Amino acid sequence: METNRIETLTDGVFAIVMTLLILNLDVPKTTSDPASLANDLKNLLPTFLEYLVAFILLGSFWVANHKQYQYVLSADNLFLWINLIGLVFIAIIPFSISLFGESRNNQLAAVFFEINILIIGLIKYWQWIYATNNRRLVDHGLDSQTVERGKRMNLVIPLFSVIALIGSFISPEYSLMAFMGVPIVMAKLKA
Amino acid sequence: METNRIETLTDGVFAIVMTLLILNLDVPKTTSDPASLANDLKNLLPTFLEYLVAFILLGSFWVANHKQYQYVLSADNLFLWINLIGLVFIAIIPFSISLFGESRNNQLAAVFFEINILIIGLIKYWQWIYATNNRRLVDHGLDSQTVERGKRMNLVIPLFSVIALIGSFISPEYSLMAFMGVPIVMAKLKA
Amino acid sequence: METNRIETLTDGVFAIVMTLLILNLDVPKTTSDPASLANDLKNLLPTFLEYLVAFILLGSFWVANHKQYQYVLSADNLFLWINLIGLVFIAIIPFSISLFGESRNNQLAAVFFEINILIIGLIKYWQWIYATNNRRLVDHGLDSQTVERGKRMNLVIPLFSVIALIGSFISPEYSLMAFMGVPIVMAKLKA
Amino acid sequence: METNRIETLTDGVFAIVMTLLILNLDVPKTTSDPASLANDLKNLLPTFLEYLVAFILLGSFWVANHKQYQYVLSADNLFLWINLIGLVFIAIIPFSISLFGESRNNQLAAVFFEINILIIGLIKYWQWIYATNNRRLVDHGLDSQTVERGKRMNLVIPLFSVIALIGSFISPEYSLMAFMGVPIVMAKLKA
Repeated sequence: METNRIETLTDGVFAIVMTLLILNLDVPKTTSDPASLANDLKNLLPTFLEYLVAFILLGSFWVANHKQYQYVLSADNLFLWINLIGLVFIAIIPFSISLFGESRNNQLAAVFFEINILIIGLIKYWQWIYATNNRRLVDHGLDSQTVERGKRMNLVIPLFSVIALIGSFISPEYSLMAFMGVPIVMAKLKA
Repeated sequence: METNRIETLTDGVFAIVMTLLILNLDVPKTTSDPASLANDLKNLLPTFLEYLVAFILLGSFWVANHKQYQYVLSADNLFLWINLIGLVFIAIIPFSISLFGESRNNQLAAVFFEINILIIGLIKYWQWIYATNNRRLVDHGLDSQTVERGKRMNLVIPLFSVIALIGSFISPEYSLMAFMGVPIVMAKLKA
Repeated sequence: METNRIETLTDGVFAIVMTLLILNLDVPKTTSDPASLANDLKNLLPTFLEYLVAFILLGSFWVANHKQYQYVLSADNLFLWINLIGLVFIAIIPFSISLFGESRNNQLAAVFFEINILIIGLIKYWQWIYATNNRRLVDHGLDSQTVERGKRMNLVIPLFSVIALIGSFISPEYSLMAFMGVPIVMAKLKA
Repeated sequence: METNRIETLTDGVFAIVMTLLILNLDVPKTTSDPASLANDLKNLLPTFLEYLVAFILLGSFWVANHKQYQYVLSADNLFLWINLIGLVFIAIIPFSISLFGESRNNQLAAVFFEINILIIGLIKYWQWIYATNNRRLVDHGLDSQTVERGKRMNLVIPLFSVIALIGSFISPEYSLMAFMGVPIVMAKLKA
């Protein structure tokens, strides 16, 4: 089976989730006073930062996914389903980031979001292992360096999820900031 | 006519429906008490399971669709419309699963969802029959084994819909769980 | 310029509008009484029929669009913008059908929806004329029969819009039903 | 890395944002009086015009993007991220146009929207510079005329953003109308 339609479905879900995230930002009520509006916007800043964190994570998943699929030549039944299970948890992100935004000083809310991200990360790691083990769905001559680099790449987000989870014991609210490191480390791994 | 744009439209609808489903989950109110939040999340568990059932069904339709379209070489007017009619009922899924979630112990709600799925299943069966009869839109040399396997594949969801419908007389709420068997049987049929 | 990205954008907008339409259906409140739920669903029937009419019109536009783009080999600036202006009015459909559903016995609501559809139809007619005049964006050898058939095809929806507009003077509510004839006539034109 | 999936993601976000914009239009309440409905619709006119301005800007970004990507042959890590950062601010458009619509006579609301557009414009300018500098991601033989034209094209929206920002000191509400000039100037630049 070809892989192009999996990409269309996956990219579609990413595009929708990225855009839905912003709907968490409630538009401030009508006011003709710039100072009052400035204050309303300042109150939205934490929600905006959370939107940014979720967006960066989605972007990181997408970039990694984009790179991996280049090597995947075909798909089998289980591969399709691993990808679909991944989409289940990606579609939950707007819910879990919104849950976090409602109850920032509640550790459970932070843990819920961070485990959501951890699960996506582990599914993506599994998907890569599954495709490359015995070169199941990739070119038979694919060098093991590329396979290993793909594995390392897929462990970046789970690693940061664990750091964020540990951080949630100190400060649920700020533990999310750990994820800001993801694209930096992923870019380093590439070089 | 080529089939690639039908796939883009269909995958787009699937991606949106998959993502909209999760909007049925109401984000729990602000609380700083983890026990209270844990309780709120526990109350969302049935809704989450319903989301999962709907997602698995959408995934199953998509995987089957993905496989069938590989053999479909061209499209005619009626084929386009059969596909569009299928999309009408796929787009209704977020409504009907949400209806079920509102009134779980009401048999009519369960029956409504299950008939929705049954109709999609029968439309997809019809679409396959239409494309393969006299090899209308597929390769003239397509072996009848592939055609038959496609038919069987397309009957899995209607079959489980009927089981769920019968089950709704015993327990509307649990009848939905019948659909959990769909991907298992579909994977078996493949082998 | 190539045309494949116009198709991706256009199909994306169609997929989203088709799925958003259904959000006009409010999920009935929780009830354990099947008779009460049956009544609630019966009250939704007109809204569902309106959804169907809007879906059929979107489907008709999409099918016609699908056929025309096969012949369009390249795009220029104005062609891109004609297509974008068309998308403006396609994106308004969920608003205008919902407006109609709110005030069914108000002629202005019916006229608003019908003019919305008429405008899309005329834009699509313009787009086809623009692409084919002097074979501007199509193959130089494209036969005039195909060009003429495309014109006729594009006049079906404007024609039915005018019929519906006239009908709105008799009954705003039922004037919408005129559009049910669109796919039938379009299928006839093909043969 | 290939660029086709970046286009799928980007076009997906554009399609969703274009369609979500219209959700800012609240459907008027049920009324059987055409005069009353006409009045309700007249009150929506400013919101509709804002929708149109936002749509025209999105269309302009998309058309420019469409043209630029024709020359981009491959993508690297930073290029993917520049594009993703652009999508962050594109996804904010429904929020910022809605903010403007709530508080039309508030300069801060106008400035917020106009800076949102300015930022997207500068990111798109940066993306083009990045791709073409030393012919990094484009054909080595790409003529400098095309590179320069791409730069000028990308400066149209930032330029109009600055005009709108200056205009916001005179009239926040009407400053937005400056953007109406964007597609006209962009079409002129092409010729």
